[in-house]
Amino acid sequence: MAFVDASIRKPMNGTADHPLDPLVADEVRYAAQIIKKHTQLSDGHIRFKVIDLFEPPKDEVFAYFEDKELVPHRKARAYYHCRNEQHLTKAIVNISTGVLESVEDLPDSQGPVDWVEYALINDACNAHPQVLAEVAKLKLPPGARVMNDPWAYGTDDIKERRRLFQCYLYVALNDDPQANHYSIPIPLAPIFDAHTLELVELQQLPMGATAEQDPETQPWHPVQAVEYSADLLGPGALRQDLKPLSVVQPQGPSFSVDNRKVSWQKWSFQLGWTLREGPVLHEVRYDGRPLFYRVSMSEMTVPYGDPRSPYHRKQAFDLGDSGFGLTSNSLALGCDCLGLIAYFDGIRTAANGEPVRMPNVVCMHEIDDGIGWKHTNWRNGKSSVVRDRRLVIQCTATVANYEYIVAFVLDQSANLHIDIKATGIVSTMPIRNNVEVPWGTVVAPGVLAVNHQHLFCMRVDPMLDSRRNTIVYDDSIPLRDEPELDPFGCAFRVGTTPIRKPGGYDLDLNKNRTYKILNSSRINEVSGKPAGYKLHAAPSQMLMMAPETFNFKRGVFSSKPIWVTRYRDDEFWASGEFTNQSREDTGLAIYSARDENLENEDVVLWHSFGLTHVTRPEGKHFKRQTLFFVHGNTC
Amino acid sequence: MAFVDASIRKPMNGTADHPLDPLVADEVRYAAQIIKKHTQLSDGHIRFKVIDLFEPPKDEVFAYFEDKELVPHRKARAYYHCRNEQHLTKAIVNISTGVLESVEDLPDSQGPVDWVEYALINDACNAHPQVLAEVAKLKLPPGARVMNDPWAYGTDDIKERRRLFQCYLYVALNDDPQANHYSIPIPLAPIFDAHTLELVELQQLPMGATAEQDPETQPWHPVQAVEYSADLLGPGALRQDLKPLSVVQPQGPSFSVDNRKVSWQKWSFQLGWTLREGPVLHEVRYDGRPLFYRVSMSEMTVPYGDPRSPYHRKQAFDLGDSGFGLTSNSLALGCDCLGLIAYFDGIRTAANGEPVRMPNVVCMHEIDDGIGWKHTNWRNGKSSVVRDRRLVIQCTATVANYEYIVAFVLDQSANLHIDIKATGIVSTMPIRNNVEVPWGTVVAPGVLAVNHQHLFCMRVDPMLDSRRNTIVYDDSIPLRDEPELDPFGCAFRVGTTPIRKPGGYDLDLNKNRTYKILNSSRINEVSGKPAGYKLHAAPSQMLMMAPETFNFKRGVFSSKPIWVTRYRDDEFWASGEFTNQSREDTGLAIYSARDENLENEDVVLWHSFGLTHVTRPEGKHFKRQTLFFVHGNTC
Repeated sequence: MAFVDASIRKPMNGTADHPLDPLVADEVRYAAQIIKKHTQLSDGHIRFKVIDLFEPPKDEVFAYFEDKELVPHRKARAYYHCRNEQHLTKAIVNISTGVLESVEDLPDSQGPVDWVEYALINDACNAHPQVLAEVAKLKLPPGARVMNDPWAYGTDDIKERRRLFQCYLYVALNDDPQANHYSIPIPLAPIFDAHTLELVELQQLPMGATAEQDPETQPWHPVQAVEYSADLLGPGALRQDLKPLSVVQPQGPSFSVDNRKVSWQKWSFQLGWTLREGPVLHEVRYDGRPLFYRVSMSEMTVPYGDPRSPYHRKQAFDLGDSGFGLTSNSLALGCDCLGLIAYFDGIRTAANGEPVRMPNVVCMHEIDDGIGWKHTNWRNGKSSVVRDRRLVIQCTATVANYEYIVAFVLDQSANLHIDIKATGIVSTMPIRNNVEVPWGTVVAPGVLAVNHQHLFCMRVDPMLDSRRNTIVYDDSIPLRDEPELDPFGCAFRVGTTPIRKPGGYDLDLNKNRTYKILNSSRINEVSGKPAGYKLHAAPSQMLMMAPETFNFKRGVFSSKPIWVTRYRDDEFWASGEFTNQSREDTGLAIYSARDENLENEDVVLWHSFGLTHVTRPEGKHFKRQTLFFVHGNTC
Repeated sequence: MAFVDASIRKPMNGTADHPLDPLVADEVRYAAQIIKKHTQLSDGHIRFKVIDLFEPPKDEVFAYFEDKELVPHRKARAYYHCRNEQHLTKAIVNISTGVLESVEDLPDSQGPVDWVEYALINDACNAHPQVLAEVAKLKLPPGARVMNDPWAYGTDDIKERRRLFQCYLYVALNDDPQANHYSIPIPLAPIFDAHTLELVELQQLPMGATAEQDPETQPWHPVQAVEYSADLLGPGALRQDLKPLSVVQPQGPSFSVDNRKVSWQKWSFQLGWTLREGPVLHEVRYDGRPLFYRVSMSEMTVPYGDPRSPYHRKQAFDLGDSGFGLTSNSLALGCDCLGLIAYFDGIRTAANGEPVRMPNVVCMHEIDDGIGWKHTNWRNGKSSVVRDRRLVIQCTATVANYEYIVAFVLDQSANLHIDIKATGIVSTMPIRNNVEVPWGTVVAPGVLAVNHQHLFCMRVDPMLDSRRNTIVYDDSIPLRDEPELDPFGCAFRVGTTPIRKPGGYDLDLNKNRTYKILNSSRINEVSGKPAGYKLHAAPSQMLMMAPETFNFKRGVFSSKPIWVTRYRDDEFWASGEFTNQSREDTGLAIYSARDENLENEDVVLWHSFGLTHVTRPEGKHFKRQTLFFVHGNTC
């Protein structure tokens, strides 16, 4: 497949500084132009979903690290639909040469959602006579607005090939743009085909303890909305007794930014960004020393523990289905961060392939995190203390009701922290008064919040002092029955086990099992031990669903906390490239099944972790604002 | 036992506001006067170690909560030695009545260390001819100073009744008050009797892989000290490129302080303080609602994993042996915290019973911890966001080489966080060049840092809406083989198990086991479930040493992460009241062995957690300053 057309203007300016920098606007437009030329389709007959950097092969990037003249070609990955056809098409465009390198129709895969189809489904559902007829039975009060959150459909049938969305419906009782419709779910969940825009099924939601639905949609039982907006709550509802706290940096920030290269306190990295992952750290070095080739949030899945249809299908893959980049908030000063803040934009594609700037989707600022290190000589009280200054690179992704705040946090001791906050509002379902179900908690009158898991996977591609590293784990194991060596039984040894084969691996708190990236050819001259970088894992309950379930088959990454694979180009996604309505995991399930040596090789370390969210109401004593059911867990 | 003497002046002013407030200076002095009168001993013949609040019975304090006229008597707990006798004496003095309520000689217990005996041992050791003769063999350079860290001796002989200290010796190569002698350990560790001040044994330290010692003390092998003080490192050694970051609160802090009552963002508590525990939170309420009667750090033990004598005895109990209050740093503005800071003093006793003010041993300030909650309506981009303001109550305890930073952190969502940082310098031992041992890591030339554990125990005495609570744990457990109910296998249930009997309990990450304090008589009107307060535990490797070891027998608390006991007055200490040279745990080992009902009773929840510190050198690339072996773990 080759397609070159000199008539399309190549990007002349605004090209990226670094081979791993995101596509610039001209590059997005140029890639789309090449594809449109190839398809012979004009705007309106082609719908671009994604145009994003197709990263160059690592070999080429390492060659570039050695010799900056060896600039890899810039390439784009595009997903699109022609004439709203059922199947997704994927193309790789070489922007440097103008060559369309590959085009692939993917009848078996659903691409991620895009805002255009979201709007189309929303409009089709909200205007559908059958839906309107059912809504009418609810006898909603005047001024009530039905709000529609089309959800990724999930999977319960291996034969399903349509692109489906389940529209969860809610009611806003006022005109405020922040009216909290999640506090008033209604028991209708129509399923629409995203291509035909047909109503597939007007599914009713169970209101009782069993999966059984009401024979007929019943009039809505009036309740007050539980609001979160300060405008709606009124001035008295917010706390009045919190005095201002400002961060002042009179000499400016300690970081410097050169296009997308960031330098701070011996650290340097290229701040990448993708529609799928949001911020990505590339070529991370400390004091010039190579640490990581690429660090990113790879995937997250959210299975719900309620077996009543249609909830059994609720299993979002919020990166693969939606994208933390695409759903990122535009951040504003004085609101989301304190101090001096640098912002970075993202670019998405419009349906016609025109670039759309997403302003301020990533923010970067310094924080002070308390005492970094301290020692006092007890003899004289003389103290040395240093503070713990950190650099935070952060984005907030809004995926319907949820917000995910993902932050890469660097400190002055060469630690890279990954902080994830799950916030926003819990996913709500209607429930009849005085009904209890084992699957969740009533968080407001008529509102059930189902228990669920959030299972994340971080992908860490190390280059500790070179491209060849080994992943090992250290176990701290007490000696037993060695009385000559250990007469009083206090001793313990640290045993090191290298990971030799790809696969999923366990943590073991009882052994203080600690995974490390080692470079066995670089020996620390003081300790005599190889240079290493420790993973301080977040031990979590893994996916509860059994191996035979779709939940498991689609998200194998979430069944084990640690995965180690041999690097291959374009293997970035824990559950595979296409997760929407996926039937099986085409990511780690495949990457980790190869019989390859991992010692002193180009290895990738993946860490799955998460939280099991057993929901609870926010009582009036515990309110932050007056919000009754925020989703506020930090891990 | 009763002793009343009207001639001793009772404290007239400066008495505490609250029955649980620490003793004020006059109360310390008065308690000592009563004891001195009783013993007929003048200053110099009695050595007070501790004079601290003896807390009133909880019944009396609850009666006071109901009726502020019912003020419990103020009492003091005192530990002292008469005529430097071997045995410790413990007295309870009723300050309100002037009555000496009990006096008890404790021939079987060693009290905590005090600064006087520390100085006496130090002086005796440093002047002892045998020690000096051995030191001379080291042929130290001119100007070198031998520094002495007398260590709590530990236990390896159930018959030992002497009060022993092992003096670990180091060398400072310059006169700076912050000269880092820990970087130059020497292989001598004389053992002294704290009462007779006799040299018990001039123990040599092993320099090789086995416990075997050199037949003769060898000349010191010159190395450069690894310094941490900025004065010694010179200006170029500290980072020059970190720009100032200040916290400004122009309208003042959001908290208010009335003597030791603190109010902040719906929270109120009495800020207690003891010589043993440092800061203690008493009568913690949120929005007026009772949460905790008392929250404190109860104990921490640090067993070392090196079987070579004398290291097998290294097992500090840093609260019971030394005291986080007694060893607290005096904190100074602009150095340890940012923003507006309130300081609280402590009081210790001098040997003669006179109160000694310890200025600024606890600091309190607000921090901003990023985004507290956020939601954006994806339809219109309208965003609500609140920040996460927190109140930090913090102390730093210096126990020889280590620093522990203990902070109680309150937030605006009624969460109480307990943040502990282990910092300072690792405990160092000498090692011959080119020797490796499995017990630790060479962190500087000639310096071994042995692997060890730090095992903490927090004591949480709840009063969630009343004095009668139940501790339960919730397990999230998938359904299996219930195809009618759960045809797609996605469902999970949350099972709740009440803790009915005292004992040690386990975490289980595979079940997301979550411990809660419940008040089963207070039902949330929205959820229909009892009011609860969740423990977000810190899953950790527990004590590695086996049940038959002294390590285990002395610190049973460290073998299980969760303990639940029935409340009894004066049961505050996880390893018992006296830990120094203890032979067995007289704390949780006893409290948890009683056959008592715990449901809807006055219960106490204890959480043990910690870190296994496998030591490492700080490479030059990872330096914060130029320090090569800081002890920097956060849990």
